[in-house]
Amino acid sequence: MKIEGKDHRALWFENGTIKFIDQRKLPYKFEIFTAKNVDDAAFAIKDMVVRGAPAIGAAAVYGMVLGENNLENAAEKLRKTRPTAYDLFYAIDYMIDKIKNGKDALNAANDYVEDIVDRCRRIGENGEKLIKDGMKILTHCNAGALATVDYGTALATFRVAHKKGKKFFVYVDETRPRCQGLLTDWELEQERIPHAVIADNAAGHFMKNSEIDMVITGADRIAKNGDFANKIGTYEKAVIAKENGIPFYVAAPVSTFDKTIENGNQIVIEERGREELSKINGKTIMPDWTKIRNPAFDVTPSKYVTGYITEEKIVKNINELRKY
Amino acid sequence: MKIEGKDHRALWFENGTIKFIDQRKLPYKFEIFTAKNVDDAAFAIKDMVVRGAPAIGAAAVYGMVLGENNLENAAEKLRKTRPTAYDLFYAIDYMIDKIKNGKDALNAANDYVEDIVDRCRRIGENGEKLIKDGMKILTHCNAGALATVDYGTALATFRVAHKKGKKFFVYVDETRPRCQGLLTDWELEQERIPHAVIADNAAGHFMKNSEIDMVITGADRIAKNGDFANKIGTYEKAVIAKENGIPFYVAAPVSTFDKTIENGNQIVIEERGREELSKINGKTIMPDWTKIRNPAFDVTPSKYVTGYITEEKIVKNINELRKY
Repeated sequence: MKIEGKDHRALWFENGTIKFIDQRKLPYKFEIFTAKNVDDAAFAIKDMVVRGAPAIGAAAVYGMVLGENNLENAAEKLRKTRPTAYDLFYAIDYMIDKIKNGKDALNAANDYVEDIVDRCRRIGENGEKLIKDGMKILTHCNAGALATVDYGTALATFRVAHKKGKKFFVYVDETRPRCQGLLTDWELEQERIPHAVIADNAAGHFMKNSEIDMVITGADRIAKNGDFANKIGTYEKAVIAKENGIPFYVAAPVSTFDKTIENGNQIVIEERGREELSKINGKTIMPDWTKIRNPAFDVTPSKYVTGYITEEKIVKNINELRKY
Repeated sequence: MKIEGKDHRALWFENGTIKFIDQRKLPYKFEIFTAKNVDDAAFAIKDMVVRGAPAIGAAAVYGMVLGENNLENAAEKLRKTRPTAYDLFYAIDYMIDKIKNGKDALNAANDYVEDIVDRCRRIGENGEKLIKDGMKILTHCNAGALATVDYGTALATFRVAHKKGKKFFVYVDETRPRCQGLLTDWELEQERIPHAVIADNAAGHFMKNSEIDMVITGADRIAKNGDFANKIGTYEKAVIAKENGIPFYVAAPVSTFDKTIENGNQIVIEERGREELSKINGKTIMPDWTKIRNPAFDVTPSKYVTGYITEEKIVKNINELRKY
């Protein structure tokens, strides 16, 4: 990704430390957080210096490099950070396996990270073909480089299309409660891709008035039948898109498809604490007595999805994927 | 409406002054704003001490009482406050007519206000019949007593049902950008009606999971064919409700039906300033460089509406209304 015109990543290894763009501070401040040891790396994951499942996996492989003198201890500390991110556990096991088999830890970690970045780049190249000059495209949440080390998933398609000189406009849902739309806004601003942030409530209005031609979101988990979990609000946007005949695409690496679940009913939706809604950037915006319900994700049935943009190709059905 | 257990109104005339619940301060602080003259009354409307078209109309009739020594001057000052609220101009003309025909100004103003309140009470009585024990009902924005002097429109149905002892639960959309859901939250909390605030993005999730049985919203303007304008986001909720087979009702007095427009395409949607989205309760939550688009209302086609709850009766088609 471009930051102040220079190529950048969400995190990287440098002089025996892990450097992170501190996502707790964005979009208000750009700061680098440095992890000098396993404890620092675990803190960065737990405290959401880094977020997004692929980026958390990358943080974990580099965390294992910092802790390679005592692998079991490092693995234990890193595993305790976030309970739900599948990539975290996969990344830790990957590093234990590589190191025990005599591979160089940093080389193995770099291979892991480059693989993530390469998959995202290919998602961008495949998805870019959908973007035509003059299009207006809606995205939800942050399916960007910040969440995937580089490129992003939905945002990879925008980056590649923009680099090819295509002219298009992106509507960015604010994405309450956590307002991750502001991370997307920050990434697109850095890339000089024309865009505007809108209230989540406004997406339907623009779709009905033919001001949105396509929707591209990311996905947290995709069931065998194509139902997928993503940030709360994705379901609403998908239904409104279908109602208005607007194509709705999901951009995600093949690893997001979960072969162990048949359909979306098997995906458990986490309800999170009240403070995500009652505070923004540390500022309280709701009275203490306000009761809140706060589901973090929703499940969108596959019938609303026009296609899945993967690093292999764009598919309508996951059986079309070679590597699935 | 109940406030701290006592009957209250959004505004009232007392000892030669107009008293307003200061809606700029809610839900964070409960304060009374006193208007001692026409200038104060005009300021209260312009600065949104009072909001909601019916409540603005009530403020205007009492403002004319304060200015009855110089009617034309008072009318001019009040007309300049808010350009779009039809009730404001209607109320001023009503008072000029009554006073010129020798009616007592305060009596005429009180008649006007009691008529608004009475219509809202009857909306509540008609709509209450739709509410069954155990129901979970979604509402959007603030169609409450604060906007209509007393009772509200959508909230009138909740108040009457609650008074009759019915047990139900209300989901309140936060209603970004201006978060008027927090005014609804405050009103329901005062009435002890069980409820929770949710992110606008979460309404679809709860509808899909059978956690919402009915939707009731207000309306700002209803066209001859039943298409209606209301707070941005209403259209999304109506589409999702229909998709999930959930009844969607609009609660509004007959005066909201605008005979001069055939359908929703003739309703012009106002786009408002960036600060509504970038600030909450005076606190900045978005960077200065963030570009924003901010439509304040949307139009929901009549095909998504199960019925219109008016003070006359619940109708599917406006031709069923006697007074239309």
